[in-house]
Amino acid sequence: MGWGDLGVFGQPSKETPNLDSMAAQGMLFPNFYTANPLCSPSRASLLTGRLPVRNGFYTTNAHARNAYTPQEIVGGISRDEILLPQILKKKGYVNKIIGKWHLGHRAHHLPLEHGFDEWFGAPNCHFGPYNSSDRPNVPVYNNSQMVGRYYEEFGIDKKTGESNLTQIYLEEGLDFIFHQNMAQRPFFLYWAADATHAPVYASKRFLGKSQRGRYGDAVMELDYSVGQMLAWLRALGIDKDTFVFFTSDNGAAVMSGPKQSGSNGPFLCGKETTFEGGMREPAIAWWPGHIPAGTVSQQLGTVMDLFSTSLSVAGLSVPDDRLIDGLDLSPVLHNNTLINRPIFYYRGNEMMAVRVGPYKAHYWTWSNSWEEFNRGINFCPGQEVAGVTTHTQQEHTMQPLIFHLGRDPGEKYSISAVTKEYQDALSRITAVVEKHKKGLVPGVPQLNMCDMAVMNWAPPGCEKLGKCLKAPKSQPWKCDWPH
Amino acid sequence: MGWGDLGVFGQPSKETPNLDSMAAQGMLFPNFYTANPLCSPSRASLLTGRLPVRNGFYTTNAHARNAYTPQEIVGGISRDEILLPQILKKKGYVNKIIGKWHLGHRAHHLPLEHGFDEWFGAPNCHFGPYNSSDRPNVPVYNNSQMVGRYYEEFGIDKKTGESNLTQIYLEEGLDFIFHQNMAQRPFFLYWAADATHAPVYASKRFLGKSQRGRYGDAVMELDYSVGQMLAWLRALGIDKDTFVFFTSDNGAAVMSGPKQSGSNGPFLCGKETTFEGGMREPAIAWWPGHIPAGTVSQQLGTVMDLFSTSLSVAGLSVPDDRLIDGLDLSPVLHNNTLINRPIFYYRGNEMMAVRVGPYKAHYWTWSNSWEEFNRGINFCPGQEVAGVTTHTQQEHTMQPLIFHLGRDPGEKYSISAVTKEYQDALSRITAVVEKHKKGLVPGVPQLNMCDMAVMNWAPPGCEKLGKCLKAPKSQPWKCDWPH
Repeated sequence: MGWGDLGVFGQPSKETPNLDSMAAQGMLFPNFYTANPLCSPSRASLLTGRLPVRNGFYTTNAHARNAYTPQEIVGGISRDEILLPQILKKKGYVNKIIGKWHLGHRAHHLPLEHGFDEWFGAPNCHFGPYNSSDRPNVPVYNNSQMVGRYYEEFGIDKKTGESNLTQIYLEEGLDFIFHQNMAQRPFFLYWAADATHAPVYASKRFLGKSQRGRYGDAVMELDYSVGQMLAWLRALGIDKDTFVFFTSDNGAAVMSGPKQSGSNGPFLCGKETTFEGGMREPAIAWWPGHIPAGTVSQQLGTVMDLFSTSLSVAGLSVPDDRLIDGLDLSPVLHNNTLINRPIFYYRGNEMMAVRVGPYKAHYWTWSNSWEEFNRGINFCPGQEVAGVTTHTQQEHTMQPLIFHLGRDPGEKYSISAVTKEYQDALSRITAVVEKHKKGLVPGVPQLNMCDMAVMNWAPPGCEKLGKCLKAPKSQPWKCDWPH
Repeated sequence: MGWGDLGVFGQPSKETPNLDSMAAQGMLFPNFYTANPLCSPSRASLLTGRLPVRNGFYTTNAHARNAYTPQEIVGGISRDEILLPQILKKKGYVNKIIGKWHLGHRAHHLPLEHGFDEWFGAPNCHFGPYNSSDRPNVPVYNNSQMVGRYYEEFGIDKKTGESNLTQIYLEEGLDFIFHQNMAQRPFFLYWAADATHAPVYASKRFLGKSQRGRYGDAVMELDYSVGQMLAWLRALGIDKDTFVFFTSDNGAAVMSGPKQSGSNGPFLCGKETTFEGGMREPAIAWWPGHIPAGTVSQQLGTVMDLFSTSLSVAGLSVPDDRLIDGLDLSPVLHNNTLINRPIFYYRGNEMMAVRVGPYKAHYWTWSNSWEEFNRGINFCPGQEVAGVTTHTQQEHTMQPLIFHLGRDPGEKYSISAVTKEYQDALSRITAVVEKHKKGLVPGVPQLNMCDMAVMNWAPPGCEKLGKCLKAPKSQPWKCDWPH
């Protein structure tokens, strides 16, 4: 989902009444970022509070490449990383993930191995359908056992776009909240729905209901689901005891076209890029009685802050044996204070850009290669900023391109390097970058190796269902990440 | 001001709390249009309820050219046109315009000759300063007499951007409302501030206060002013008796760069063009107790509807001796109903595009000429849609380019002409266009002739101030409209 997909962030169809209400009852963050312009690394960062380059969710196979966890990926989240639910457990929290995991699908990478008590969902994207011989369909898990596969037991009709997955995920969410409340247990629910990811889907009730086509239908169903969950918290009388945060894991995938992707509002490009359209996210915090209603915070925030903030809210501390990139946003949430902090825009192993205050400096620019672009893959459709949305990896480390995101949110007008404004901004940014690079110890890259043998051929529980498939012989290779 | 300049329409800085509140208390129109991508024709349409091609605010000097009323224009609003205040007078309304008139500056074109009882403001844009020999500075009028000139008695510091004009206009507005209320007279106030028009200005109190630079400061001051006027209506106890509408006369002038122009949100291009960025406008209706609070209307609306709607609200009828393009939006305002109606996008004498439902068909595309573009004038900075943002006037009348503005508000993906969707949309649109063309009687074009002699050399009242200047000899020429 993109920044511009919510009514409150200017989507002209204004079809997200529940999220807009959530904002009216809570705090809106127009300057909130994901940790990476792609799904898996963002989600790893959300749960570890650390940049992908630290937690290992990146590749060194080539320079500045986006990588994620397709079925053939060998790696996943390392046991050396400490995930949010692992720490929450110390205070008796029951942790559940519903929806897409995306931190690796081999046995030792799965959610229940990394602090979650429950899981309903899938380890990978809902691509498919596959023929089960070249490639298995992605399994859906209930806790540690598969209960079926996408396009088989869990249907997605790619022609009509119909799937009731969001409804299943909603039901699971409401049910989990209900039972934890009954048992008076504190809980953490990571509700990771994926209806707005191509192939986009919605349930029958929502199909054709939006003005935006199928993608808008999916947005409406997510909006409805969030509304249902907030209403449920209220009905159970635990709304004042529950911190809720809504955000997305990357910008709208505008390369997928108008029928399979959304809007990044006034921002440049989308998913896969380190322009604002790739990493600025819709974000709303909600906690009646604690977060002042109807407020807007101009705090620069990231998904990694949800790690630190959630721990703070639960009265816990972040690990002190490693560098945590997340910030505790509690002072922002309670008092709308502003904390000075930078935003780092990584693509794989490269720090492409940095934001300090209103200024963003690009040290490297790249949309995608000419080869990919000429094949019709366009990360910036309808947009082109000379020297910025480049099709070769352009290095600007000696003289970064600097933009003022306040008056130029679309990154169209780089500030002339001969101005005082440029020099002042650069000296502030340089200090931040030097400090960052000094403290940077890259993690072991987890997304370098691929192997058809590691795909979801025979997930745990497949025997009971008679759905085990035969894996091919292991033939690992260095994954090819074109973007 | 552009669609994307308000917080409620997704400006990331969210610096328009008063307008956002106005929307929360009233009705938001995300599909509201001006009648022309340029100031003068839009304003003529607002006050006549008729398209520029009917009311004469266009040129035939060249094909599809934007024209307006610079100081050298000979023409202006025709006596044959009936303006909103003229009709409102029948019911005893006192009519005032504050700010920019822009419907011609020669004696017979001025506001008090066309139904307004009072005026405080200027006939033209606040360009300048001029040297008084080649060109006079634009006069500021109080009713029928000039009281000074821009850059002289009414300062605008182009270096710092400081001017207290908006404060003066606000004061005038509050004062007018106060006196009409004291006298128990119904009133019409056309508050036409122009601080967001280049050269952008704000008063000291607002300079440097926004995150968006000087343009943002100007927006903040306009936002503040609207808030003050609504609060004033409330304080006087006439808020439930006053219909208020906020909108703009063209899209953000993005060719003026980030320091002198605003945002058109997710829309294509800006001022001067018939893409959505040029003509879709921020729009909010407010009338406590009559318009349901916090509603969003997907009605397609235009500034011409304000003519018909205001008359309806006042219990008056539109003229029945001519074609009126404005629609009475009362049913929309009161019951949020939807009325089927097209939007016509004209540039000069040419109907460039038409919107019917979610579909927009471009019969002609043009941003600006290669010559202008190569001189650095860019109406679509950072944006380029092949075959759409063309630099030659491209005719598509045999097979219009059609876009679905619901899923593609940015006009990036024209629908393939071989699809059923295209054919269905085209047949609906064709019927609308045929009807429109059949009923079209173009007015006498008022914006064809220019003459240095007609400039504001010696406006009425100049003698008292000792500010009369000598006009050159009349040498009329056909104005050159490059865009």
